[in-house]
Amino acid sequence: MSLVSGCLGINSAGRLTIGGVDVTELAKEFETPLYIMDEGQIRQNCRAFSEAMAASYPGNWAVAYASKAFACKHMYRVIQEEDMLTDVASGGELFTALGGGLPPESIIFHGNNKTDEELRYAVKTGIRRVVANGTEELRRISRIAGESGRTVSVSLRLSPGIEPDTFSAVQTGQLDSKFGIPIETGDAMEAVRLALSLDGVELQGIHCHIGSQIFDTRPFTMTAEVMVSFMAKVRDELSFSLKELNLGGGYAVRYLPDQEVLSISDYVGAITKTVQDTAKRHGLPLPELVIEPGRAIVADAGITVYTVGSVKEILGVRTYLSVDGGMTDNPRYMLYGAEYDILLPARALESKTQTVTLAGRCCENELLGVDMPIQPVKAGDLLAVLNTGAYNYSMASNYNRVPRPPVVMVREGKPFLAVRRETWDDVARLDN
Amino acid sequence: MSLVSGCLGINSAGRLTIGGVDVTELAKEFETPLYIMDEGQIRQNCRAFSEAMAASYPGNWAVAYASKAFACKHMYRVIQEEDMLTDVASGGELFTALGGGLPPESIIFHGNNKTDEELRYAVKTGIRRVVANGTEELRRISRIAGESGRTVSVSLRLSPGIEPDTFSAVQTGQLDSKFGIPIETGDAMEAVRLALSLDGVELQGIHCHIGSQIFDTRPFTMTAEVMVSFMAKVRDELSFSLKELNLGGGYAVRYLPDQEVLSISDYVGAITKTVQDTAKRHGLPLPELVIEPGRAIVADAGITVYTVGSVKEILGVRTYLSVDGGMTDNPRYMLYGAEYDILLPARALESKTQTVTLAGRCCENELLGVDMPIQPVKAGDLLAVLNTGAYNYSMASNYNRVPRPPVVMVREGKPFLAVRRETWDDVARLDN
Repeated sequence: MSLVSGCLGINSAGRLTIGGVDVTELAKEFETPLYIMDEGQIRQNCRAFSEAMAASYPGNWAVAYASKAFACKHMYRVIQEEDMLTDVASGGELFTALGGGLPPESIIFHGNNKTDEELRYAVKTGIRRVVANGTEELRRISRIAGESGRTVSVSLRLSPGIEPDTFSAVQTGQLDSKFGIPIETGDAMEAVRLALSLDGVELQGIHCHIGSQIFDTRPFTMTAEVMVSFMAKVRDELSFSLKELNLGGGYAVRYLPDQEVLSISDYVGAITKTVQDTAKRHGLPLPELVIEPGRAIVADAGITVYTVGSVKEILGVRTYLSVDGGMTDNPRYMLYGAEYDILLPARALESKTQTVTLAGRCCENELLGVDMPIQPVKAGDLLAVLNTGAYNYSMASNYNRVPRPPVVMVREGKPFLAVRRETWDDVARLDN
Repeated sequence: MSLVSGCLGINSAGRLTIGGVDVTELAKEFETPLYIMDEGQIRQNCRAFSEAMAASYPGNWAVAYASKAFACKHMYRVIQEEDMLTDVASGGELFTALGGGLPPESIIFHGNNKTDEELRYAVKTGIRRVVANGTEELRRISRIAGESGRTVSVSLRLSPGIEPDTFSAVQTGQLDSKFGIPIETGDAMEAVRLALSLDGVELQGIHCHIGSQIFDTRPFTMTAEVMVSFMAKVRDELSFSLKELNLGGGYAVRYLPDQEVLSISDYVGAITKTVQDTAKRHGLPLPELVIEPGRAIVADAGITVYTVGSVKEILGVRTYLSVDGGMTDNPRYMLYGAEYDILLPARALESKTQTVTLAGRCCENELLGVDMPIQPVKAGDLLAVLNTGAYNYSMASNYNRVPRPPVVMVREGKPFLAVRRETWDDVARLDN
């Protein structure tokens, strides 16, 4: 049978492995519900992006991990060891990243609405780049920089105006978005002009991010062309050279075994070619090029393991499997109708002859997915949801006061707790 | 202007008040983002249900607060002082309820997939009732009761088979649901038979819950009739008297000023009349009747106060207001498209001449609502989202590692912290 991630395997006992370790044994040791991630797969994903950049882009480049996909201290350590940059989207992520030992000069701060407290923290710690989402924020950055007499290295988040109607997965780069300064309205050029005039602000480049789970190169190359052309326009109109071009993320990962996805090298190659071609056409030197994969670094490195509680077969309707987790540890089906592949770790080689609807344990009509193929299943079985490394732990809640599962990381065949299991005490600790 | 909750007012300075206290002052003292709840409104809601039951039902009755809507230690104390029962949906809620000082004999344990650990905890603490979701759980309860030689008082969650196509808000009482034992298939009668045969299980009654935000009495009365008729059938077929009938919740609350909702007394009166009529028709004694409001106890007692960060006006498209919270403290727009009323607390009397789309601060295309009328607004203004007392704090997450806001409770004009503000340290405390 075809497994949806390279870090998964089936051992001689017919049981699912992750990073070479028996999932059934891990579930016994750490109990369920349980997130398990393979550090080797994370590192391999990091290197695939770095190698594709090195192979196809002759200018300076960097790969930044968008840590909103999965953030904990250990994850930031891995990113540091892989010589990548890191994106944070809040003071809490910045705090965790610094707590994990990340050097400030590798950190890029994103977000459409950073608070003054967060901007002060970013300025004080001297991070690499603050990506300003608009002119109001630019002015605040200038004011806050002035308080401490520092200069803040900024980039401007632009919206390139790629139409969402053309590519439905494209959700954040269009004109109608909370993110970014529109290019087509002239606002972006005005923002560059403002940034160049403000004290305490050093404008390094421009940034955009057009959305998530984009399966085609075309929206990326259209975007790269728009952005490089804007850099040329800035040179022509303002006689200023923007050094850095950050094109964000959006590379689609595989969640189901039969999904066709771009290879990382095809995705990166299409972007780097367009950047080079467009720069050449405009007679621009090659910008320092940054891309920001998040999901693609962690999604296929993680699985979630549950224990099946009740099996409710409604004759002629459907079979509900209830597991000991749910929308509290994976809200993506409830939020986006996201689909996942599932299997029984202890009988991974058996054919998936049953179809089930996977229900969570919350007191709500919440599901993890509908009509999913699985091996013949009964109460008490372990069940794995695959490729849950991105946007599962990071989006987890305590709804119903359900504690969040731990994250066990497998490193070179050895498991360890990257994030410990939350307790009932933890959940009530803020209550007076 | 018409305010959407009775606990809200506008003072002589034209500013919004909750429980008589100036919201602008509270935001200054406790900072934003901030949940504020009025304890007086919670108590008034509790009493409205109790009084409606007392006025219209001659048998024994109880009102149980479905605490998944909003749970913290102080909330459980209020419920105890109001002489109500409490529903919990997990070990974490049970732990918090007991921590808040609730007597175990007032607690009902719900859920479609309770773990063995949770059932042991419930049995050990001797709570009032465990509501079993199926025969597998019944057998586990019997086994766990046997371990300690105790008898567990149970109720059976049934699905009455009310068709969701007829009433679209009805989402959990239909045949095709993870919840409940279907009546129409004969499974419910078999489950009663099993419960009567199992050691350590004392069957007290039956339960159902047909869904949420139901604006009409008809689904409730249809359900009451089905359930009472099933009690008569149990008497006829098994010569057994089920004592308790728990009809769950589902009463719709008002989120927008122009929404028409049932009065609590009309809702309760329709149910109690149907129960009495149906019992009489079948020659059944009146059952002990339990109803379980959750949302209706807390929704209109709470507001969320944010500070407006950036205002992004896209000419001819829309205006995005970004606030210092978002789907992390209120995921209901993202999950259900839920609508809320908003206003500026400091200028509450002014006309709502502007229309905005309310964006959160998460690094994601997330919103709190679209095209919402509001007073003329600028960066730095306080903004209140009204009637957020239910399913906001309880569903909050740390996505983007954003700490959860505190809950300030106003009691007789005095504010106090019912739940303290989470810190960046708290958010990273589980990381190794």
